[in-house]
Amino acid sequence: MAGKAVKVGLLGLGTVGGGVAQLLAGEGPRFRRRLGADLVLKTAVDLDPKLAAGLGLDPGVYASDARAMLADPDIDIVAELIGGLEPARTLVLGAIAAGKHVATANKALLAHHGAEIMAAAKARGVSVAFEAAVGGGIPLIKSLKEGLAANQITRALGILNGTCNYILSRMSSEGAPFNEVLAQAQALGFAEADPSFDVQGTDTAHKLAIVAALATGAWPRLAEIHTEGICDITPLDIRFAGEFGFKVKLLACLAAGEGRAEARVHPALVPQGHLLAAVEGPMNALHLTGDWVGPVLLYGQGAGRRPTTSAVVGDILDLARDILAGCPARVPGLGEAEDGRGPLELAPLAEVRCQYYFRFTAQDKPGVLAAISRVLGEHHISIEAVLQKGRQDLGPVPIVMLTHEAREADVQAALAVINALPVIAQPTLLIRVV
Amino acid sequence: MAGKAVKVGLLGLGTVGGGVAQLLAGEGPRFRRRLGADLVLKTAVDLDPKLAAGLGLDPGVYASDARAMLADPDIDIVAELIGGLEPARTLVLGAIAAGKHVATANKALLAHHGAEIMAAAKARGVSVAFEAAVGGGIPLIKSLKEGLAANQITRALGILNGTCNYILSRMSSEGAPFNEVLAQAQALGFAEADPSFDVQGTDTAHKLAIVAALATGAWPRLAEIHTEGICDITPLDIRFAGEFGFKVKLLACLAAGEGRAEARVHPALVPQGHLLAAVEGPMNALHLTGDWVGPVLLYGQGAGRRPTTSAVVGDILDLARDILAGCPARVPGLGEAEDGRGPLELAPLAEVRCQYYFRFTAQDKPGVLAAISRVLGEHHISIEAVLQKGRQDLGPVPIVMLTHEAREADVQAALAVINALPVIAQPTLLIRVV
Repeated sequence: MAGKAVKVGLLGLGTVGGGVAQLLAGEGPRFRRRLGADLVLKTAVDLDPKLAAGLGLDPGVYASDARAMLADPDIDIVAELIGGLEPARTLVLGAIAAGKHVATANKALLAHHGAEIMAAAKARGVSVAFEAAVGGGIPLIKSLKEGLAANQITRALGILNGTCNYILSRMSSEGAPFNEVLAQAQALGFAEADPSFDVQGTDTAHKLAIVAALATGAWPRLAEIHTEGICDITPLDIRFAGEFGFKVKLLACLAAGEGRAEARVHPALVPQGHLLAAVEGPMNALHLTGDWVGPVLLYGQGAGRRPTTSAVVGDILDLARDILAGCPARVPGLGEAEDGRGPLELAPLAEVRCQYYFRFTAQDKPGVLAAISRVLGEHHISIEAVLQKGRQDLGPVPIVMLTHEAREADVQAALAVINALPVIAQPTLLIRVV
Repeated sequence: MAGKAVKVGLLGLGTVGGGVAQLLAGEGPRFRRRLGADLVLKTAVDLDPKLAAGLGLDPGVYASDARAMLADPDIDIVAELIGGLEPARTLVLGAIAAGKHVATANKALLAHHGAEIMAAAKARGVSVAFEAAVGGGIPLIKSLKEGLAANQITRALGILNGTCNYILSRMSSEGAPFNEVLAQAQALGFAEADPSFDVQGTDTAHKLAIVAALATGAWPRLAEIHTEGICDITPLDIRFAGEFGFKVKLLACLAAGEGRAEARVHPALVPQGHLLAAVEGPMNALHLTGDWVGPVLLYGQGAGRRPTTSAVVGDILDLARDILAGCPARVPGLGEAEDGRGPLELAPLAEVRCQYYFRFTAQDKPGVLAAISRVLGEHHISIEAVLQKGRQDLGPVPIVMLTHEAREADVQAALAVINALPVIAQPTLLIRVV
């Protein structure tokens, strides 16, 4: 085995890229033991040379020209850790065209261009690995593609954005409003300066697109995934939900059947006894149901330098094992030999059936509850529980309801009528129950 | 791809073997899609022909002669689902010698003979897969060998025996004593007629041996794993533990460092906020800590026909992918190219340091607490909390303590002195805190 080596090229030396460079440089004997060969960081590309200097990389490893690295026939595996759509897409397609295997943490890239990238990889006979794109260090991509391959995955529920879960956890423990907790989270580094990708659910939708593709073998159209964020949730909702026996979580929800699926991202009420309700702070978890395995939960840190590095280097080791064993692309990109079927057909939101939590904001006048209840009844929505707390001042009061199972189309129609009632002071908040 | 097929031979058509036969027969298109080839159950061996008839297997699939199946050059993969040490060991070694890949759910076999079996497989260039041996359908073996391969696993805590967890959960929810709940569990099929393997911790120790081997690359000597069961736990302990803020769980505990490890199985107090405390009933979970990934929890059904079948067939698919890609034994048996290092050195129990829960049973006389406390103090054990409830009758009373961190050797020495005090009515119960 002496002299055998697998050579890695890195694109991006930021938080995760720097972690990957550090782990590869620092734990050579570990990887030699696991591969029976050396794992060598040959080239690390970044526009900023100071990053390489700060990491203490060997001279000669740093380069500023990504295209030259992709053209180096000596590089076996390219790790794309730039993020965003461009130039990441062009560079990943370039690496594939050059016959290199790719590891990427880029969920936005895969959610938008996964089908194109995987088709290119399949045509070229190389692999694209993406464990780090969903759930940070949690080995959930490998579990979906391989460990649970005997199953049809029928359902997935995920807490896949640490920023949102951190904010909701703090809102719950402190009773503080969204904006205040978001500002704290930004100060502590748990939220970006521009948090909209996280708090509006977009990042979670990217990750759900990937989970849906793995569960069904076909990529959904990202724009068809109904996506709501957490900006409208108030501490009051979290308190009322608690009184009904639930926690509020931003969930990625997938239900998969024969050739058809539901996929959506929205705040949800999770029963307090469910393990997902115990996932607090910045942690992530994916709760899967398979037709043979039943329920499985995979939990861990969903972001951050060290967990994400664990996932990227895990992928690099996996690709290196394929290379050393002479079986590149041993497992198809989505775990199905027939990857590349047309886009996944998603059921319209209107067809969803579940229980609902409503918070009406109404003038405190006689007959309000009767008016609301009548509209709900006319739309075949029956009420399981109502909470109306005494007025705090002379303004509008919250009236909270939990319904029995109802149809989304009926719910939307009913709320349109209710929101137009003169006694309703502001649009009704809706949270679905899982 | 037409005509390409991977052929499977089954040893044992009991609960799991029957499930594997049913899944392979029922979901041919699913596996063809995932492999790009057919996965065929060619031969199923059992001493009882009625099992094959009951499953409606194709005539010609059933056979009574295991050795003839192993000699069939057409069989690629053998699934050993007999259980127990012999004839399983001889048949698995026979399959390996015949150049077949093996999938097994047999934790006892691996815990006792894993080193021998893996050495034989390595020498013959075949793989032994064993996802079903630990944690039923939870993809934890694959996660340890592959998904988390970038990490040194520093710690593992597992709830790995569904029978024990079911019994402790029911004792907790009902306040019923061990023997009564065990009898219920047997009536419901959650416990074997002879439950000693489960309730004495032996089954958990088998699984811990496997986890320890995967985490360190070396097999421990099974006899060196300190193993205690749950038979001495009373509803009183569960209640007192609850007042201290803990749940009682039977845990497999591993701490791994450079070339040295701690591995033990015993009841443990788990803080109520820890996710392992939320693992109830017959569910299993493994909580891992890696040096880069941090904490990871993998949770699911630890036993039963369908989850175990999921794991066995997942392994069969994995082996089939290796065969089809022409890379048998792509990943070494324990995930390390240098498998086969000598046995794992385990630190003696006496060196363990942790917090302890003690339940003393003492005559209700003045000075008892002082006498106990003095002995503990002489052994450098300091007390964090004491609970002593009013007497219920004229007999001995329980005195419960939670200590600060102490050394096991000191604890054992102190308890030997305390148990010999005339006021102590029965041996002191000790539960370690994790």
